[in-house]
Amino acid sequence: MANRYTYQILDDFLIRVFTKIGCPVEDAKIISEVLLVSELRGISSHGLARVKTYLGLWEAGRITLNNEVKVIHETPSTATIDSGNGYGMIGAKKAMKLAIEKAKTAGTGWVSVNNSNHFGIAGYYAMMALEENMIGITTTNASPLVAPTWSTSKFLGTNPIAMAIPAGKNPAFVADFATTPIAQGKLALIERKGENCKLGYVQDKIGNPTTDPTILKQGGAIVPLGSDYEHGSHKGYCLGAIVDILSSVLGGANFGPFTPPQVAFLPLLEKSTGKGIGHFFGAMRIDAFRPASDFKNSMDEWIDTFRNAVPAEGHEKVLIPGDPEREFTEIYMKEGIPILPDVEIELLEVAKKYNVKTFLE
Amino acid sequence: MANRYTYQILDDFLIRVFTKIGCPVEDAKIISEVLLVSELRGISSHGLARVKTYLGLWEAGRITLNNEVKVIHETPSTATIDSGNGYGMIGAKKAMKLAIEKAKTAGTGWVSVNNSNHFGIAGYYAMMALEENMIGITTTNASPLVAPTWSTSKFLGTNPIAMAIPAGKNPAFVADFATTPIAQGKLALIERKGENCKLGYVQDKIGNPTTDPTILKQGGAIVPLGSDYEHGSHKGYCLGAIVDILSSVLGGANFGPFTPPQVAFLPLLEKSTGKGIGHFFGAMRIDAFRPASDFKNSMDEWIDTFRNAVPAEGHEKVLIPGDPEREFTEIYMKEGIPILPDVEIELLEVAKKYNVKTFLE
Repeated sequence: MANRYTYQILDDFLIRVFTKIGCPVEDAKIISEVLLVSELRGISSHGLARVKTYLGLWEAGRITLNNEVKVIHETPSTATIDSGNGYGMIGAKKAMKLAIEKAKTAGTGWVSVNNSNHFGIAGYYAMMALEENMIGITTTNASPLVAPTWSTSKFLGTNPIAMAIPAGKNPAFVADFATTPIAQGKLALIERKGENCKLGYVQDKIGNPTTDPTILKQGGAIVPLGSDYEHGSHKGYCLGAIVDILSSVLGGANFGPFTPPQVAFLPLLEKSTGKGIGHFFGAMRIDAFRPASDFKNSMDEWIDTFRNAVPAEGHEKVLIPGDPEREFTEIYMKEGIPILPDVEIELLEVAKKYNVKTFLE
Repeated sequence: MANRYTYQILDDFLIRVFTKIGCPVEDAKIISEVLLVSELRGISSHGLARVKTYLGLWEAGRITLNNEVKVIHETPSTATIDSGNGYGMIGAKKAMKLAIEKAKTAGTGWVSVNNSNHFGIAGYYAMMALEENMIGITTTNASPLVAPTWSTSKFLGTNPIAMAIPAGKNPAFVADFATTPIAQGKLALIERKGENCKLGYVQDKIGNPTTDPTILKQGGAIVPLGSDYEHGSHKGYCLGAIVDILSSVLGGANFGPFTPPQVAFLPLLEKSTGKGIGHFFGAMRIDAFRPASDFKNSMDEWIDTFRNAVPAEGHEKVLIPGDPEREFTEIYMKEGIPILPDVEIELLEVAKKYNVKTFLE
């Protein structure tokens, strides 16, 4: 099964790798932290499994190291940042920090980022707002795999929305979800097992529902949240479109079908409608709306109420967004982060290729 | 079939009715406008069919006329408004105006409203931002009918999200959707026809899927967007929860299960967790992120791209959010607004009861 390693050992390893290719140590620390927080939250699709891909993008000349992160437009509560084509985390963390700074004086802060790349999990940045007694919001666009309702054109990414809301005695509410019924990683897992998927995840090249998880390679597409028009997929399409527009059109990144692929084996597109991929960050001070203690008391009561909802038959409890990820974090901090065997092999190959000490030594 | 009446004739009628019960004329005009814009957009569930219900709430002593709308908290980019328990539209329109004013100086404006009532369609307020070259955002909580994933407790409303985004030569992008697979109005329509509904709209009192559209009267609930856990209903639950928290906890309105019923035949709840129902409004100046003309050119290109997506087999075209509603508006402004026979009878009864001139005279 999966071997487990401590956060510290994996963090040291990732910093060795990314500084070896030329990242400043402070940038390498940010990249490592976002990847490992993803692992800690049980979202391994956005963690160590991405290291080889991230390095491949740099090898292909698609990533700028030592990237300059520049504010190119601003007002008291907003800014747009050009992320200098670096690894997405570097500009994204600065952007969320700027949103928080703006919120301190203006009440809220909103920062749009262009010229960026894959930034890991959206939830990482939304959660940065929590310790400041702010609500954090993050969206990003992503490689196009999703067809609008009634279409066969893969025009949208799985475009996630993350929102972190502070509470008082209770742990924070943290939602971080794709605007599709299924993430691409889960579809790939079904394919690897040689199984069929459920109806309502993907469609074939003429737009009919199918259970074939390999259909994306044959002109098929993932469908928006809601699965079909009768079950509200046009609402999922609206959500994916809103995330795309806030993340790209607002700040000048490439939108929808022109979002640059975040894997080196797919060529860059000829046409561009902006710079790189884009993100959107928001921070709202809770005491910009009412006294912070009133908000926290009310949010605690909200969480207690929903936690005590009556479970449906066959279920033990009703979850608050963020519960499963917090449980993973508690276990993995104590027992180590499990790494799937094929990911471990990939990381050892990376260590060898770049001649850095592994996490085994 | 349905008789048709001009906007002007219906507007005059509604202003007669609401001034007759004691609304100041400027308030009656706002109520009428929001109800009729809903009709013009083809959303008749939120239009004239609500007049009798609205009057019923006032008759039951649950609505304050001449309500004072007060800013009770503010920062440069935010405010919280106590809507004085009036008809929802009155405070809501003032709140969105304040969000727009704040955006003019701070770049964005965000206004939370408590002590309110049903405000009509969320899209009306989001669209107010368009003529100011701003993106408009509106959410509201609503009477609890929806169960969180894995629960049987009706804790959330159909909690809509509306977002209006300006374009250049193209009509604006206007999304306005419930965070459930089906609106309550459509379910009631299926029930009236004596038909079964599709699986994936509602569940029974122990949480099992059912096709019985009357199930809400037997302890059942509407399910969140996504329909079931396997198809991402936990994401719909997150969305409904986010809308509830932004609309209620943020500004001090009642949340979730404590949202006061917006029909007089349901009694008010004993427990309260805030004041009235709540809304949330946002306005973001597009030129707070990049020059307005750049944004509009990019948004036009986005719309053109998505409008030219390849249709799935059996479909003629791919829609941009807001297309169907705009088409309704064009037809109804030319040919009159159709009123369903039972709604027309209700309105004539209202005219008689309050002794005002009908829309027939």
